[in-house]
Amino acid sequence: MSGKLITFEGPEGSGKSTQIRLLAEKLGARGIDVSVTREPGGTATGEAIRNILQHDAVNEPLSMRAELLLFAASRAQLVEQVIQPTLDRGEWVLCDRFIDSTMAYQGFARGMNIAALDRINEFAIGGRTPDLTILLDLDIEQGFERVRCRYAEAGGAADRFECEARDFHHRVREGYHQLAAREPERFRIVDAASCIENVADDIWNHVQVML
Amino acid sequence: MSGKLITFEGPEGSGKSTQIRLLAEKLGARGIDVSVTREPGGTATGEAIRNILQHDAVNEPLSMRAELLLFAASRAQLVEQVIQPTLDRGEWVLCDRFIDSTMAYQGFARGMNIAALDRINEFAIGGRTPDLTILLDLDIEQGFERVRCRYAEAGGAADRFECEARDFHHRVREGYHQLAAREPERFRIVDAASCIENVADDIWNHVQVML
Repeated sequence: MSGKLITFEGPEGSGKSTQIRLLAEKLGARGIDVSVTREPGGTATGEAIRNILQHDAVNEPLSMRAELLLFAASRAQLVEQVIQPTLDRGEWVLCDRFIDSTMAYQGFARGMNIAALDRINEFAIGGRTPDLTILLDLDIEQGFERVRCRYAEAGGAADRFECEARDFHHRVREGYHQLAAREPERFRIVDAASCIENVADDIWNHVQVML
Repeated sequence: MSGKLITFEGPEGSGKSTQIRLLAEKLGARGIDVSVTREPGGTATGEAIRNILQHDAVNEPLSMRAELLLFAASRAQLVEQVIQPTLDRGEWVLCDRFIDSTMAYQGFARGMNIAALDRINEFAIGGRTPDLTILLDLDIEQGFERVRCRYAEAGGAADRFECEARDFHHRVREGYHQLAAREPERFRIVDAASCIENVADDIWNHVQVML
C-alpha cells in the first residue's frame, strides 16, 4: 500500500519545520514510517541546484525563468529519486514546500504567468500531486512584528524595505489563498498565529482522517 | 536594428562547429559583428548546470524530467544574459544547438511528451525564436561508418550498442525532419555529407538572403 504525501506551505516563520517534526513524531507513534524532505534540495542533484540558486556557484544575475526552471528540475529529481520510491515502500513523506511555493512566490507575488507555471509544475512532478497540503496561514502584520524589531535593532533604511516586503508578502498570502480555493479537497488552511500545540492539534485533526 | 539569431542543429559529427566558424568569418567579412555560443552553457550559470548534466557535480542517476528542465534553465539564462542583449546591440548570434535539440533528442528519440516539451521551450526562450535554423542532415549509415571503425578498433560488444544507437539516431533524424516540416519558413536542411566547402556554400546561400 502506497504511503501519503503531505506538503507544508506558508511564509517564512510560520513554523513549517517545527510542525513537520511534531507531525512526524505523532505518525511514528502510530507505527507509520515517515520521511521528511525539503525543497529545493533533498537529492545530490537538488543540493547542487540549490547552490546555483543561492549564487554560491556563479557570479551573475539569475534570470527569473532560469530560476523557475532550476526549482522545477530540483523538484523533478526529488519526486523520482526520493518521494515516489518512499511512497512505493509504504512510507509517508512530509515535504517542506512543494509545487504551491512556486505558484505563490514566482506566480502570484512576482507576476510570472500562472498557466505556464502550472504546466511546468505538472511536468516536474509527473502527476504526483500531494495527498494533503497544510497551509500555515499567518497575518502579514503579525509576521512583520518580528521583521520590524529586527530592522529597528539594525537601524537604517528599514521603512522602504518593509513597505516593499509587505506588499510582496500580501501577494504571497493572497496567492496561497487562491490556490487553496482552487483545490479545496487538497488544501487545509491552519491558523499559524496560535501557539505551537494548538497548531499541531489542528494539523493532527486534518491528518487523522487519512489514517 | 536588432541582429539575427541563427541556430545550428544536427547529429554529432555533422560539422556544426566547423560551419559556424566559417559562417562567422563570412559575416565578419561583410562587416557584421557576430557572437558564437553553445548549449548547454554559454553563461556562468549555464556552465554550472552543464557540470550537473555531465554528472561532475553529483553521483546519482539524473531523472529525464530533471535533465530536461536543467537544459531549459541553461537556455533561459543564455537567452536573457547573452543572446537577447547581443541581438539588441545589433550583433548576430550563431548558436550551436538550441530548442530543436531538446525536441529531437528528448522528444522524438526518447519519447518524452512533445507538447509538454514545446511549452517548456517556449517558456525558456520567452518568445525569442531563431530567425533561421540550419539543419545539418547526415545519413545515419554514413555517420555510423565512423562509429563502426571506432568499435572495431576497441573490439568487444559493438554490435548491440550499434543497433541500439542506430535506432536512436534514426529517431533523432526523423524528429529533426518533422520539426523542419512543421516550420519550413525557419528551417533550412543542408546536406552535411558533402565536402566542407560545398556545405558552407549551401549555408551561405540561405544566409545571404537575410542581409
